[in-house]
Amino acid sequence: MTVGSVSAVRQANLGLVLRTVRELAPCSRAAVASATGLNKTTVSSLVADLMARGLIRETGLSSRQRAGRPGVLLSLDDTSLAAIGLEVNVDYLALVAVDLLDRELLNVHIPFDARAAGAKASVQQIATVLREFTLDPVLAERRIIGVGVAIPGLIDAPSGAVTYAPNLGWQDLELRKHLTDLLAIPELPVLVDNDANLGAIAEYRVGAYSGTPDLVYVTGEVGIGAGVLTNGSLLRGASGFAGEIGHVPLDANGPECGCGRHGCVEALAGIDAILHRAVPDKFPDRPLSGKDITDLVTTAVKRAETGDTAAIGAIQSAGTWLGHGLAMLVNITNPRLIVLGGYFVPMGPWLLERARSAAAEDSFAPDTGGCRIELSTLGLSAAARGGAASMIYALDSGDLPLPVPRSSVAGR
Amino acid sequence: MTVGSVSAVRQANLGLVLRTVRELAPCSRAAVASATGLNKTTVSSLVADLMARGLIRETGLSSRQRAGRPGVLLSLDDTSLAAIGLEVNVDYLALVAVDLLDRELLNVHIPFDARAAGAKASVQQIATVLREFTLDPVLAERRIIGVGVAIPGLIDAPSGAVTYAPNLGWQDLELRKHLTDLLAIPELPVLVDNDANLGAIAEYRVGAYSGTPDLVYVTGEVGIGAGVLTNGSLLRGASGFAGEIGHVPLDANGPECGCGRHGCVEALAGIDAILHRAVPDKFPDRPLSGKDITDLVTTAVKRAETGDTAAIGAIQSAGTWLGHGLAMLVNITNPRLIVLGGYFVPMGPWLLERARSAAAEDSFAPDTGGCRIELSTLGLSAAARGGAASMIYALDSGDLPLPVPRSSVAGR
Repeated sequence: MTVGSVSAVRQANLGLVLRTVRELAPCSRAAVASATGLNKTTVSSLVADLMARGLIRETGLSSRQRAGRPGVLLSLDDTSLAAIGLEVNVDYLALVAVDLLDRELLNVHIPFDARAAGAKASVQQIATVLREFTLDPVLAERRIIGVGVAIPGLIDAPSGAVTYAPNLGWQDLELRKHLTDLLAIPELPVLVDNDANLGAIAEYRVGAYSGTPDLVYVTGEVGIGAGVLTNGSLLRGASGFAGEIGHVPLDANGPECGCGRHGCVEALAGIDAILHRAVPDKFPDRPLSGKDITDLVTTAVKRAETGDTAAIGAIQSAGTWLGHGLAMLVNITNPRLIVLGGYFVPMGPWLLERARSAAAEDSFAPDTGGCRIELSTLGLSAAARGGAASMIYALDSGDLPLPVPRSSVAGR
Repeated sequence: MTVGSVSAVRQANLGLVLRTVRELAPCSRAAVASATGLNKTTVSSLVADLMARGLIRETGLSSRQRAGRPGVLLSLDDTSLAAIGLEVNVDYLALVAVDLLDRELLNVHIPFDARAAGAKASVQQIATVLREFTLDPVLAERRIIGVGVAIPGLIDAPSGAVTYAPNLGWQDLELRKHLTDLLAIPELPVLVDNDANLGAIAEYRVGAYSGTPDLVYVTGEVGIGAGVLTNGSLLRGASGFAGEIGHVPLDANGPECGCGRHGCVEALAGIDAILHRAVPDKFPDRPLSGKDITDLVTTAVKRAETGDTAAIGAIQSAGTWLGHGLAMLVNITNPRLIVLGGYFVPMGPWLLERARSAAAEDSFAPDTGGCRIELSTLGLSAAARGGAASMIYALDSGDLPLPVPRSSVAGR
């Protein structure tokens, strides 16, 4: 209720102008002034600031100006900057880079055995991979505005620390701090968030059902988690631990879960559980490595395609358990859409209908509360994609942590 | 992104001024201008409008004015208006009236057997009770700005229709329309919402833990539902069906639920289920009436106090099942606080610890994700209290549906 400080007002207005240009581009400064209600002098000053930061550029002259000289048109600058998203999962690293229009520039999938490596070596490996990624010719000419890191576990988002990621074997790991130290790129924002949350952001921004404001993304890897968007915003809860659908207990007599309990959704429908039953002859006596998982998923899907009853039965059973878990989400959060990601996608032909039926069965509201259940089209890079998108859309709030390089300021 | 219409801007500013006076009262027009950034002429016009609607009044002169004439001070007008909340439950009607400061003026509990009466007679009875309530001397001199109606079931909030309330036996009932027709008070806003949602609003506004932004209120009547506040806003979901914790299935072999399924939280821990086991010798062979429930709860609590093992065992067992259900809420929405309401309160001495233990057991995040579980202090009028509070705080958005009575305009 107090009058905001000048810098907070300016920050809000920088975000407002950026969003306006994103929406109206190509557009003149006058059009921005008209749409925002800000006066033209203010708009010119804000636009100059955004240009100096590499966020907006002039793209040409308007020929449709009704009177006076032709107006210079503005667009987002899709040539100067990039944002990176990175997902650390049990069996792979995924990296995605996007430009300011949230268009994909690079997409890399790297098999990586985080469980075997341990926390310390994993963090060092992540930093190395990130540095190499930024040296790719596609990115080398761009300034990186931030890195969004997706982790399958409980994250303390404000500090960027991993509270608990049982499938990685990580606990109380100050990931942001370590990455920032190792990367040693001054003022580079690093965001750490739950993989399902960032998957939900990716679906909302660029997925096949983008724009659906009440959307849940469910990760289908060794772990199962849900990123819950309600009215377009992430449901984080009091400590950022919302969406832990993987550890909802469904069967007290079920198999042991990575969390130490029995019969959690993850222990019944996670990829470990599926592969154990789908390809018992190939399942090793040791924890699955990243390569194991990739190979075994391929084998399981191939067998299911040829009518193998063990493979089909294992996937169908997982689909049913998953559906019972999704019903909890439906009863408690009433989404319009649940998107299944990760390895659930290649297993979709046998898993999806079972999941839909079980979810409908346990939903109190008729017709699953109006909720559709569909497969993701974003593959194994969904969370990384959402990490990159998050850094782009964070700019819209006017939080522009970019130092203006002196050389480029001097040149303007 | 378009420039708002003048009336929308004025509406937003009316709300802004109302909130500012609520926060700063007693305060001068100049203080309102300073806090809101609006110019003094605009503030004077908005204040005049709010005074004409009976929302703001002048309360005296400031003696602390530094220069010039003393300023006239403004406060919310707590003498002209009232809002009403009404809860329809299986066994009672609860009515609450509050003034513009959200202070309670009247609170009435009426045993009422909605199940036996049927939908049509219930609606007529509700309208009759509401009309009588407004004739109470405490309210007769005040204008009623709205009625917030709490219903235990799925509500289509935009239309005010009850989609499905199994414990009342109501389905697709256009409650707002019928009540509006029967009351025949022109332009009286009637809001219909889920009882748990309005209970959560009451806890957030006036409960013992008011101000907790990530708070869940759980109804403990024949039905069990959750009103989920996340970051201070109700989690409604895509169709307004969120929070249906009562119909999360916990035990496929459990007793039949009002929804037709088996082993739902409500069938294991609802008041019917508790009383059936706690006072088997008194439990009638017919559906419980409102009076039955009141009497049997009293008996069960008395017996538990004297050490009766059947009564204690029944309540403890319900507490454990309830806790398992609450863990679903914790895993999916990660609240800071769960408040148990209704009949769970008198049964708290035997129920609460069991619920806490079971919730902790099934929560993935350590320490129940930082969530406390406590008993409500608002008794059986929580949902009605929230209905009244909702009408008061709806004004803060500038949605002021009050016709200005001609007589009072002429007098100003």
